[in-house]
Amino acid sequence: MPASPIRKLVPLANAAMARGVKVYKLNIGQPDVPTPEEAFKALAKIDRKVLEYSPSEGIRSLRQKLEQYYHKFNINVGADDIIVTTGGSEAVLFAFMACLDPGDEIIVPEPAYANYMAFAISAGAKIVTVPSSIEDGFALPPIEAFEKLITPRTKGILICNPNNPTGYLYTRREMMQIRDLVMKYDLFLFSDEVYREFCYTGAPYISAFHLDGIEEQVVLIDSVSKRYNECGIRIGALITKNKALKTNVMKFCQARLSPPLLGQLVAEASIDASEEYMQDTYNEYVERRKFLIDGLNRIPGCYTPIPMGAFYTVVSLPVDDADKFCTWCLRDFEYEGATVFMAPASGFYTTPGKGRNEVRMAYVLNKDDLAKALVVLREALKAYPGRTMPE
Amino acid sequence: MPASPIRKLVPLANAAMARGVKVYKLNIGQPDVPTPEEAFKALAKIDRKVLEYSPSEGIRSLRQKLEQYYHKFNINVGADDIIVTTGGSEAVLFAFMACLDPGDEIIVPEPAYANYMAFAISAGAKIVTVPSSIEDGFALPPIEAFEKLITPRTKGILICNPNNPTGYLYTRREMMQIRDLVMKYDLFLFSDEVYREFCYTGAPYISAFHLDGIEEQVVLIDSVSKRYNECGIRIGALITKNKALKTNVMKFCQARLSPPLLGQLVAEASIDASEEYMQDTYNEYVERRKFLIDGLNRIPGCYTPIPMGAFYTVVSLPVDDADKFCTWCLRDFEYEGATVFMAPASGFYTTPGKGRNEVRMAYVLNKDDLAKALVVLREALKAYPGRTMPE
Repeated sequence: MPASPIRKLVPLANAAMARGVKVYKLNIGQPDVPTPEEAFKALAKIDRKVLEYSPSEGIRSLRQKLEQYYHKFNINVGADDIIVTTGGSEAVLFAFMACLDPGDEIIVPEPAYANYMAFAISAGAKIVTVPSSIEDGFALPPIEAFEKLITPRTKGILICNPNNPTGYLYTRREMMQIRDLVMKYDLFLFSDEVYREFCYTGAPYISAFHLDGIEEQVVLIDSVSKRYNECGIRIGALITKNKALKTNVMKFCQARLSPPLLGQLVAEASIDASEEYMQDTYNEYVERRKFLIDGLNRIPGCYTPIPMGAFYTVVSLPVDDADKFCTWCLRDFEYEGATVFMAPASGFYTTPGKGRNEVRMAYVLNKDDLAKALVVLREALKAYPGRTMPE
Repeated sequence: MPASPIRKLVPLANAAMARGVKVYKLNIGQPDVPTPEEAFKALAKIDRKVLEYSPSEGIRSLRQKLEQYYHKFNINVGADDIIVTTGGSEAVLFAFMACLDPGDEIIVPEPAYANYMAFAISAGAKIVTVPSSIEDGFALPPIEAFEKLITPRTKGILICNPNNPTGYLYTRREMMQIRDLVMKYDLFLFSDEVYREFCYTGAPYISAFHLDGIEEQVVLIDSVSKRYNECGIRIGALITKNKALKTNVMKFCQARLSPPLLGQLVAEASIDASEEYMQDTYNEYVERRKFLIDGLNRIPGCYTPIPMGAFYTVVSLPVDDADKFCTWCLRDFEYEGATVFMAPASGFYTTPGKGRNEVRMAYVLNKDDLAKALVVLREALKAYPGRTMPE
């Protein structure tokens, strides 16, 4: 399995911090907003003698809470359609393991979350990518581009909506095109919707489960990590109305015995987070998004489309090679004692050369830090020897 | 992936309980002894704003605590050799994923923990079994039997020591034979030692890391689940001194982002469990073991060797087919409103017909319950239509 470009940079970031340099981490999806107080209250009131195995499919009361949660989004699934997983990551892995045989293919629009690739490799399956472009704001590529890639080994389409890394939110029209393709070729639709709480434009969030006629083919990937900022508890979900698939997924669940008990208690309590908490978190991201996107597009040579959801954006920079630039920022540059850690977009593409001058930034830092990071980035772009526009 | 015989019985056990029948669960390794109070104290004093991702390899302070713990057993590994996993299960899975290519083989003495098979299937690898026998007390089969099965695709030997399901503890002589084979054929030695705290006979526990000359080939699988009775927190470890292998395992760790944060906090605190707690737990199992083994061997036609470790034993019963008998106990039998749930041993063998009249029992219930379960079992064996000895 190839190491991702972000991971190669981690030791450089650690070395910079060891030198006393302040590193603004725009590279990861670990936000600084608080976890809801309901989560901590649930931990404080644990009254058990034994921290025992939970059921392999997850605690029933958590699955019932999730059912109610999904109903708010018109996602009509029952507690028995929901399998609790160890993070959204395990949901992706088990979906691939259960649906794909070695050599099978899934089609994914790129740029895409790099770990999908790792899980596909684990399942012995192959990710086939359809490039989307920053010029088109990372809209869904023409559906014909997907159709051209379909082979007898194609078993599914994978989307992330709202999208990591681009922040794109698929339109109803795009989702209907995906539905038609999935129906025509009898594919699975793997839909990672962990960022559904973060849609900023008023455009509707269309879940894969809103699409008529492919209910048995949809595999929804979810996680409480992002919406309650509790990435560390490792609680996600795989949701399917397909009984045969559920039986197959459950075999993998039983092999790993159970999802984390403590995380489940916390997740269940977090679903009761107040409206105020949810709104405050949302408002915080709305502000950060505006602030970062405006700031980036004001830096000469930088361009990013306005992300409609999630908390990432892909930015094109006036540099020869974003991998080199990100490395240089951490190894060779500082401005007033600080530098920036960005994720080179090359890790999100499989098409060679694609995204070469792009990075992904997460707007998970507070506005003060984002402001300082923007100053550092502007200075870095002035000083970088491989810049592609005059100073 | 085939469903294990235990899992097929779960709905029958649930149905029996729904009918109001008391079901004595000897089928699973979920003990009823308390989790140490240090675990709950750690939860009560969590003082964080965000339940964030932990490092993919686990929190450093936990790995340092584990290092100290292993030193007590003369297992000389450093914190950097230890990767924290989501339960021992994930350690097995990642060990297989990182060490084995599709089609590779590992040799395992059977009966063996059924989930090894599931993880091997996930890795596309093949488990090749060497039968051990109840007549020999489940001692290591002659090493020549292993050697005969070695092919160019053989990449490792897997042992569980003390053993689940047999309770066998490998002798120094047996471990040296394994070492010589591993060295001769340059294999990995996967050694699952999660039951090391439960060795009852005074015979020495020989860790794979005690074997000279194969330090780079050993992959130790561990878990805090059993020793602190906190199976639900899902914290295990994969330990290797092989830097290349560690790098490879870390790719799988990074793909799943991090092990559960809350479980790590609990595990770290549990390592400080008092001597008294550890001794009480040990003493409890010693008593249960004696009580169950004596009781079983007094039932006409029953036989079980005396397990030296862990908290399981394999029992041969005077029945035509243990799968049928276990099913019958749950579906068709009750004695004074109670029945027993045992694990048919067929799930632990791959050799067809092996273990046909055997079951695995876990002595994880208190003595009162074990006493009642023994009475029920004796009556069940009298009433079962497929018994193989006169009443």
